[in-house]
Amino acid sequence: MPNIRLDIEYDGTNFVGWQYQKNGRSVQEEIEKAIRQIFQIELRVHGGGRTDAGVHARGQVANIFLDENIKIDLLAKQLTAVMPHDVIVKKAAIVSGEFHARHSAKARRYRYRISQTSTAIERRFCWQVFSKLNVDSMRECANALLGDHDFQSFCKAIAEVDHYRCSVHSAGWIETNQILEFEITANRFLHGMVRALVGTMVNIGRGHTLLQDFKLILDSKDRAKAGMSAPAQGLFLEEIVY
Amino acid sequence: MPNIRLDIEYDGTNFVGWQYQKNGRSVQEEIEKAIRQIFQIELRVHGGGRTDAGVHARGQVANIFLDENIKIDLLAKQLTAVMPHDVIVKKAAIVSGEFHARHSAKARRYRYRISQTSTAIERRFCWQVFSKLNVDSMRECANALLGDHDFQSFCKAIAEVDHYRCSVHSAGWIETNQILEFEITANRFLHGMVRALVGTMVNIGRGHTLLQDFKLILDSKDRAKAGMSAPAQGLFLEEIVY
Repeated sequence: MPNIRLDIEYDGTNFVGWQYQKNGRSVQEEIEKAIRQIFQIELRVHGGGRTDAGVHARGQVANIFLDENIKIDLLAKQLTAVMPHDVIVKKAAIVSGEFHARHSAKARRYRYRISQTSTAIERRFCWQVFSKLNVDSMRECANALLGDHDFQSFCKAIAEVDHYRCSVHSAGWIETNQILEFEITANRFLHGMVRALVGTMVNIGRGHTLLQDFKLILDSKDRAKAGMSAPAQGLFLEEIVY
Repeated sequence: MPNIRLDIEYDGTNFVGWQYQKNGRSVQEEIEKAIRQIFQIELRVHGGGRTDAGVHARGQVANIFLDENIKIDLLAKQLTAVMPHDVIVKKAAIVSGEFHARHSAKARRYRYRISQTSTAIERRFCWQVFSKLNVDSMRECANALLGDHDFQSFCKAIAEVDHYRCSVHSAGWIETNQILEFEITANRFLHGMVRALVGTMVNIGRGHTLLQDFKLILDSKDRAKAGMSAPAQGLFLEEIVY
């Protein structure tokens, strides 16, 4: 049976997250439902990056094993056509049998958007921060993240992981007009990591936390030392690299 | 009584348009409601540019005459605080008594966004066009709009206007990644004009209408000769120039 890679985009606003949950709509479930509706097949769709409630994705990837009868060129359109408008399958392609959306991933790239002015149009896709931010300090924090570190200070308390080490390939803040974006690529991310990093860096940008404390927070391996999590609606899973 | 200019942004998705209507929420009404709630005053808020149902605005302007007791520095925040999240007052400032949001306007700038790929995240803020478009032809159309023309071919049939002449200061298509944007500035716009222009240019971009017919359509002064209106959700009132 061919292994099929699906490239997925969603507006996370009205989802409980990627993963199936009893108490609401998950993206995973919508895709499984679409497959059931078209092919009368029950299967589990494995995603490459879990996203929490309210988090968006431009580059989520999943893989499924489906019968050879499918027309691969039509599959993305077929699935999108029967799903609600806040999730689409951008591409479907046959890949090698070993490909696994999650385990084959070499890196993931996330983006976090902050609007420095009040906005009605962008409100679902950014965190609105009105305090004056010292972006230079925030850039120094981003630089401090590069390379291998233990990120336990930026991980949700209950995490089912063996270790907290992540290798950050790139991290930086980009400012365009009134939008400030943090982009980070790493081999892996811990639960809540990007939002905890952004919340802490914004505290530093606001002057509520001292810049020199950022490294101490990182070294402390204590989530309580870091800042609040930045809200979900600013976060985008941009890309999974294989 | 001081004359106050309000700069307003809204996500038009869930509005019947700027102007009051019996059958749904209008932006005008939300602002009047907010004023009533805060100041217990009934008044009419005049907008500088009417937008239809589903059309967005980043730069709508209105003016109101309000008592001197108001604290002008707080007004924008006060109004925004009591309104639903899809409309905000970005700025409030006292202006000369002669200023009228509509009659004092010298020009207006609109933008129309097209996504050339399927998108879940941008779906409320663009028209999704998947046919291959000849952008060079569309740029030639935009050039043909510059200067003074009679735009009756691009005006909704029932328009309460004396004449159809508009003076186009600038018009052009900008392509960034998969987003194609049409921006146009003119002294005035007729009802449905930008959407009719975009619909017609997209027909040309698709090859359904010949490029050389664009000038004939413009000269015909016949709405039936032009293309379908592009959908509302791609249109933004960007700025009103005074």
